[in-house]
Amino acid sequence: MITLPARLLLGPGPSNAHPDVLSAMAQPLVGHLDPAFLDLADEVQARLRRLFGTANRMTLPLSATGSGGMQACFANLVEPGDAVVIGVAGLFGERMCDVATRLGARVTRVDCAWGEVLADAAMAEAIARVRPALVAFVHAETSTGARQPVEAIARAARDAGALVVLDCVTSLAGLPLAIDAWGVDAVYSGTQKCLSCPPGLSPASFGARALERVAQRRTPVSSWYFDVELLGGYFGERRVYHHTAPISAIVGLAEALRRVEEEGMEARVARHQAASERLLAGVAKLGFEPLVAAGHRLPMLNSLLLPERVTREGEAAVRRRLLDRHGIEVGGGLGKLAGRIWRVGLMGENARPEIVDRLLAALAEELRG
Amino acid sequence: MITLPARLLLGPGPSNAHPDVLSAMAQPLVGHLDPAFLDLADEVQARLRRLFGTANRMTLPLSATGSGGMQACFANLVEPGDAVVIGVAGLFGERMCDVATRLGARVTRVDCAWGEVLADAAMAEAIARVRPALVAFVHAETSTGARQPVEAIARAARDAGALVVLDCVTSLAGLPLAIDAWGVDAVYSGTQKCLSCPPGLSPASFGARALERVAQRRTPVSSWYFDVELLGGYFGERRVYHHTAPISAIVGLAEALRRVEEEGMEARVARHQAASERLLAGVAKLGFEPLVAAGHRLPMLNSLLLPERVTREGEAAVRRRLLDRHGIEVGGGLGKLAGRIWRVGLMGENARPEIVDRLLAALAEELRG
Repeated sequence: MITLPARLLLGPGPSNAHPDVLSAMAQPLVGHLDPAFLDLADEVQARLRRLFGTANRMTLPLSATGSGGMQACFANLVEPGDAVVIGVAGLFGERMCDVATRLGARVTRVDCAWGEVLADAAMAEAIARVRPALVAFVHAETSTGARQPVEAIARAARDAGALVVLDCVTSLAGLPLAIDAWGVDAVYSGTQKCLSCPPGLSPASFGARALERVAQRRTPVSSWYFDVELLGGYFGERRVYHHTAPISAIVGLAEALRRVEEEGMEARVARHQAASERLLAGVAKLGFEPLVAAGHRLPMLNSLLLPERVTREGEAAVRRRLLDRHGIEVGGGLGKLAGRIWRVGLMGENARPEIVDRLLAALAEELRG
Repeated sequence: MITLPARLLLGPGPSNAHPDVLSAMAQPLVGHLDPAFLDLADEVQARLRRLFGTANRMTLPLSATGSGGMQACFANLVEPGDAVVIGVAGLFGERMCDVATRLGARVTRVDCAWGEVLADAAMAEAIARVRPALVAFVHAETSTGARQPVEAIARAARDAGALVVLDCVTSLAGLPLAIDAWGVDAVYSGTQKCLSCPPGLSPASFGARALERVAQRRTPVSSWYFDVELLGGYFGERRVYHHTAPISAIVGLAEALRRVEEEGMEARVARHQAASERLLAGVAKLGFEPLVAAGHRLPMLNSLLLPERVTREGEAAVRRRLLDRHGIEVGGGLGKLAGRIWRVGLMGENARPEIVDRLLAALAEELRG
């Protein structure tokens, strides 16, 4: 049988999956219309609603990765010619612009420096000026490690009659989410970050205003695969065939969600926060500095400016030694932060002091002298 | 931990995954840019090329189910206003029409009765009349159990300058494929049929003519997620990040492909054929008759007209008894064949005499008296 090397995954995702999640996934398959599987799908949908903080009926795991979730939200909610305002605080905001433009949207982007967060006033100004059909931004920008405040921007968007789309790929199950209270109309995430599942599914949710927009489209959703009305046939009361659901991945997600609720989000959030603080204190002694200002840092994704000792050798070479000699993966920078930062993920099962200490010991060894 | 009931999956898919595939999937994760995983991706791509019968560099597992593969092929190869000819011999041909129409294609459909195969002459006539940019049809129509001859239609399409797209969701790893020799430009499949993997990936391949068409598009591919040029950044020599690959599912696919090559396609095809013949002989004694004429039957998907004994009780009730009392799933009919046929899959690991006999014994017990 094919075997893989043992890795501690402390990059921007995937993170390590819990052994019980892997065991759940490895059970013999059942059919996608099996009554036992449909019960499990009900349970997954209910648990996702609680985790997103929503009563949205249309809450489901999409059969694609987190980026597929982004694709699905825009494909359903944007029509050719629609004005869209997108907040760009990093690579995933950039990606939103590309996705929306390809669907025919007229995109107005609001930028901030990578590592900072979008200013409420700049977003509100663009929204007032453009009067967009939709406003989209990223809660946890995985390329920079910054945590975006949501409520003021969402309020400005809704006051102007726009839908609000939020990327929660990296925040779900690591930070508290309350999308209904925040006024978010559509949200998507991934399984391979704080849920500690393998990648391959995108938990997503669509509210009543979003579904109304879909129902009133002038043009059909260009993607049959991601059409939320068709998906509602299977992930709704009728449970009719649309495409074959990724059974094993959904079983793994069910187990992961069960574990999240067993721990409780309060304890889980505190665990992520404590692990991040332990990491930042430890790496400070080795000369790493956080890219993001205090108060805006993501606990599960720590972006670290590199000490001269690392850039002198070449940061990729040091990462490769961490992988080859210690079995530890950390992430490099993306886009304009490539070569300037590392991204250290402490996500889900890996947000623990003993994991932080293992990384710190390996780093100390590699950066000695 | 969440547990599922034991099922023998003899419907239209998913089929049962081999235990080694499930164990391979359940290994601890590695990263999607880990050198060990990139080697595995190379291996998967090479094995898929051999299985499809192609030298296409751009052969890859798409991060979506088989229906996502259909979406990806049309999204890349169709532009608004393009004329497209689609052969409709069942539900999946119908689905192609929906997918293509949503993308702005002007679709000309060529129909045949469900359970029959498309006539070469009818397809050639439509192609000559419409001069389409693209011709698409289904090799193994999972809704009817009919096996479509490919070469004559593909030749007519290419002679007219059209691209040829073929759905091989149910045929891959159960019937010999030779897409280069047949003149097919783009193909997609699924993992949950004759490969005996869980659902969630779509093995696909794009030839030089298809990629040239993409390069010359007047409009960008509307789907960022499925854009084959972007996917080529990761599933090509550069191995740059596009989206996070579904690691575990690809590891499972690698193990499944290894097993297929270990057995050899000749033996595998013969095994599927023998299992189908054993099934048809056995169910004939119980009053089931094949929907499809001899010579056009798919060995891995047997569509059976129901005896009066079954329709009298209600076919869904009998299927439910098979599931509840014997743990065996068989499929009902779809669309215009709903209530009229069962679809019995003998796919991959399940194409074995002892599996057929288990179904026959259960059926005999349930239909007695």
